[in-house]
Amino acid sequence: MKYSANFGKTHYGAQGGSDLISHQLLLKGGFIEESAAGRYFFLPLGWRVHEKIKQVIKEEMDAIGGQEMIVPVLHPIELWEETNRTNSVGFELMSVKDRRGAKFALGGTAEEMFVDVARKLHLTYRDLPFNIYQFSTKFRDELRARGGLLRVREFIMKDAYSFHADEKDFKKEYEKMARVYAKIFSRLGLKTLRVEADNGYIGGEYCHEFQVESPIGEGRFFQAKDKSYCAHEDVAIFYKQNKNVKEKMKPYKTVKAVRGKTMADGVKLHKLPLWQQIKDVLYVNEKGGFILAVIRGDFDVNETKLLHVSKSYQLRPATDEEVRKLGSYPGFISPVGLEKKVMIVADDSLHTVRNCYGSANKKHLDAMNINIDRDFKAHLEGDIAMAQDGFLSGKTHSPLQEKRGIEVGNIFQLGYHYSKRMKNATFIDQDGKAKPYYMGCYGIGLGRTMATVVEKYHDDKGIVWPKVVAPFQVHFISLKGAEKQAQALYDRLLKFKIEVLWDDREESPGKKFADADLIGIPVRLVISTRTGTKVEWKNRASDKTELLTIAQVINKLTG
Amino acid sequence: MKYSANFGKTHYGAQGGSDLISHQLLLKGGFIEESAAGRYFFLPLGWRVHEKIKQVIKEEMDAIGGQEMIVPVLHPIELWEETNRTNSVGFELMSVKDRRGAKFALGGTAEEMFVDVARKLHLTYRDLPFNIYQFSTKFRDELRARGGLLRVREFIMKDAYSFHADEKDFKKEYEKMARVYAKIFSRLGLKTLRVEADNGYIGGEYCHEFQVESPIGEGRFFQAKDKSYCAHEDVAIFYKQNKNVKEKMKPYKTVKAVRGKTMADGVKLHKLPLWQQIKDVLYVNEKGGFILAVIRGDFDVNETKLLHVSKSYQLRPATDEEVRKLGSYPGFISPVGLEKKVMIVADDSLHTVRNCYGSANKKHLDAMNINIDRDFKAHLEGDIAMAQDGFLSGKTHSPLQEKRGIEVGNIFQLGYHYSKRMKNATFIDQDGKAKPYYMGCYGIGLGRTMATVVEKYHDDKGIVWPKVVAPFQVHFISLKGAEKQAQALYDRLLKFKIEVLWDDREESPGKKFADADLIGIPVRLVISTRTGTKVEWKNRASDKTELLTIAQVINKLTG
Repeated sequence: MKYSANFGKTHYGAQGGSDLISHQLLLKGGFIEESAAGRYFFLPLGWRVHEKIKQVIKEEMDAIGGQEMIVPVLHPIELWEETNRTNSVGFELMSVKDRRGAKFALGGTAEEMFVDVARKLHLTYRDLPFNIYQFSTKFRDELRARGGLLRVREFIMKDAYSFHADEKDFKKEYEKMARVYAKIFSRLGLKTLRVEADNGYIGGEYCHEFQVESPIGEGRFFQAKDKSYCAHEDVAIFYKQNKNVKEKMKPYKTVKAVRGKTMADGVKLHKLPLWQQIKDVLYVNEKGGFILAVIRGDFDVNETKLLHVSKSYQLRPATDEEVRKLGSYPGFISPVGLEKKVMIVADDSLHTVRNCYGSANKKHLDAMNINIDRDFKAHLEGDIAMAQDGFLSGKTHSPLQEKRGIEVGNIFQLGYHYSKRMKNATFIDQDGKAKPYYMGCYGIGLGRTMATVVEKYHDDKGIVWPKVVAPFQVHFISLKGAEKQAQALYDRLLKFKIEVLWDDREESPGKKFADADLIGIPVRLVISTRTGTKVEWKNRASDKTELLTIAQVINKLTG
Repeated sequence: MKYSANFGKTHYGAQGGSDLISHQLLLKGGFIEESAAGRYFFLPLGWRVHEKIKQVIKEEMDAIGGQEMIVPVLHPIELWEETNRTNSVGFELMSVKDRRGAKFALGGTAEEMFVDVARKLHLTYRDLPFNIYQFSTKFRDELRARGGLLRVREFIMKDAYSFHADEKDFKKEYEKMARVYAKIFSRLGLKTLRVEADNGYIGGEYCHEFQVESPIGEGRFFQAKDKSYCAHEDVAIFYKQNKNVKEKMKPYKTVKAVRGKTMADGVKLHKLPLWQQIKDVLYVNEKGGFILAVIRGDFDVNETKLLHVSKSYQLRPATDEEVRKLGSYPGFISPVGLEKKVMIVADDSLHTVRNCYGSANKKHLDAMNINIDRDFKAHLEGDIAMAQDGFLSGKTHSPLQEKRGIEVGNIFQLGYHYSKRMKNATFIDQDGKAKPYYMGCYGIGLGRTMATVVEKYHDDKGIVWPKVVAPFQVHFISLKGAEKQAQALYDRLLKFKIEVLWDDREESPGKKFADADLIGIPVRLVISTRTGTKVEWKNRASDKTELLTIAQVINKLTG
């Protein structure tokens, strides 16, 4: 198409909304415009990229037997009530009432809708397994939305749902989808890491994010140096080495401790190692119950893990006031003696140390030689510790390396979570009995993927689109005086069905070249009075130009 | 794909929701399922049809320089307030608030959004004209939604918006779009009539619906027998023949009239023709003002025309109580003497008659020899009459024929309606001045088009899809004992990239044949122990079968 007719402009100078390079370049190149915060127009150029990403995903989904369909954008709220999701994701759920009073959720995901349509079909074991998916608009009522296309309130997602007779069958599909996802992103030019992640309220062991390593990523995860393990910070487990476990237990005693409230203050005062100190963090859960997390001093509490171990939905740090109400003192809280007032959740690391020191529930009073099980009993024990760079991985004891990434996709086990909560979400098995289906789900955000490609493929002049997602294959610039040759070449490119953007404007060569670099189409062709009967070819990713005949150009482009 | 793996089933027996044949067949064939009233799942088979319709529309839109893009589903309500649409379409508009209190419209159309993105680009005359479009979900808060895909609350629409420097340029685009629409529907197998329609609150002369004639259509329109004219009932004009205009005016007088309230009662009592009676209908507009429509007795009031002539937004019939309050009497209202209490709007047909009879604002009192201008003056005069079958068309006086149709598309002039109401919705013209753009818009509902195709293409066994929209090109049935040959043929069809649905199920031949007829794919192929090395070919639309070699089959399908 002719660039003069293109709806969309290049802009120069810093753009608003976000400093992210992908946001800046997509705005500058005329790919997107902002509607409201976190809501974007995709201009024709941007939409072409979006559609190309969609096409790659569709091809790969169809290749493994996925079936595209569509569910309504408005989900009857009764379905979300069946699964109690109106409560569990209430904070980011938008809902709307029609004029007859019927209420609908604006879905962030569509599990209930897919289960609802499946149960309408009265499935039998013969119908399983299947994998159905859609590309559709999703809504997230995010509080913050300042990351361009990387964190938005409305976006198009490919969400797939697989239905199985049992867990074993699901696991096969899950591994297949993991391979498909790696292939999809690889085709799009993105190297992804498969990162174990938190399955949230669903639980279950199968949940992975596909992360593209990037310093601007919001996701923090750990990869073992030997690559044997990769997990999101929420779930990463690590090897907790024994410390002084061979020491004999010494008598518990309290000592005067005029110190500040930090762990460092404790180390300074007692001149003992940080790992020997006990760290206590008081939380309040969604029901108002107190939870005291107790952990080895050199570790931090991982709130996601704590949620799971304590079976809570939400946690917040307790206030100083609440600490005092319990009869303790801020900065001096201790599990010793609090068993009846709070739920004590201990990290298993407390068994790697002996004769710890720590607080004693009174101002300026510390305790020495605290030992779990002898001096206090935890109501719950488990792994509630946050991994850190340099810690050793759980299995191979290889050092964990902290990484940041952009989550472009995720796959996870739903198990029976939805099918058991929704009525008649069953299939008739070979034994004639109705059984709930075992499910998985698989998502890719298209706009985020597009922005991630830009994060990875750009230079200081603009975007450098990989061929597969480029809005056009050729950016053809004609300069003044070569109009006739230009029209001929354009017609010829179209005849060969080559996707060409022809910058036919009356602009200076400098402006045209700068726009071409900014827009980032893989091949730039130039015709001017100086190229004669030939055409200048330049790849966007290279500085080298060459003069080719039209036949050579066509050959290279169609070859 | 294998039908055994298809997500979706055939059903037999009457389906709920609507008796429309398209609804019944789309449900029975496993193309759609209902989510909530007026909201549908498109199952994989149905989605393939939907996507094929989309592809045809896209090809034709792109061919005339249309540029596909996308705007957010949620429209900032401030934009709708700029154009006052929150008031004018309030009854069918859904809106939603996010958790920060920002309000959004769930768009039924997207004029404001397209103008908003256009004004963000700071256009100049060089950028005009352009035509930008999207395929996106639209919402209509319809009170009734009982027509399957023909009347829904949520659907995917292709909505296009063109921007021009002036009306002249718009008109060229408008005619181009009219041709494109006829072509699109023709490619989809639908013969459309271009029907003049009401432009609603926008006004302007350019507004057409593309109607597919059908007895189940909700649209009523009139076509002149000589095809010179075709218009929706809302706007259809007709030739109002003179009656007794040569009579001398006789003196106005009142007479006792013990009669009922209907026009027929008047005819019966006075033994005079219906056309000589005056018909008076009292309305109340949105501001509470009284409007008395006065028209020749053999015509009916057209409320849409009355809205325009009276410059009202909404009208409702007055109650008997309101008639009495005016000092008149129900069934006996008359314009004579009411000039100061109501706005009198007279149909121009009152100049085709003389010495009319009618009511006289008192119970059981009629008037004789009423003549407009002499006995009462209308505040407004114009065409407020409803066309009827057999009336003569305005220009060629050819008899009008009443028709019903399904509106599958519409095109209309927006003019300056949006650009003048929205701030900075301007382009810099050659003279350096900022001017509002002149606009048009063009819509096609995809699901409705799909249902219309089914209304037109079916027989008593099921759907008979036109090739261009068929979910697959070949419905391949293999019967027991021919598994090996079947697999070989299937592989071969796939190799030639022929879209094939292979019914590989262990079902009876009868069931498989019935399902094939119901689903309606253009070509049915059968392999059984009886077909030997050959294949039975049958077109869905024909009863004839023939035995072909595999090579012949491939030739016919790829030829």
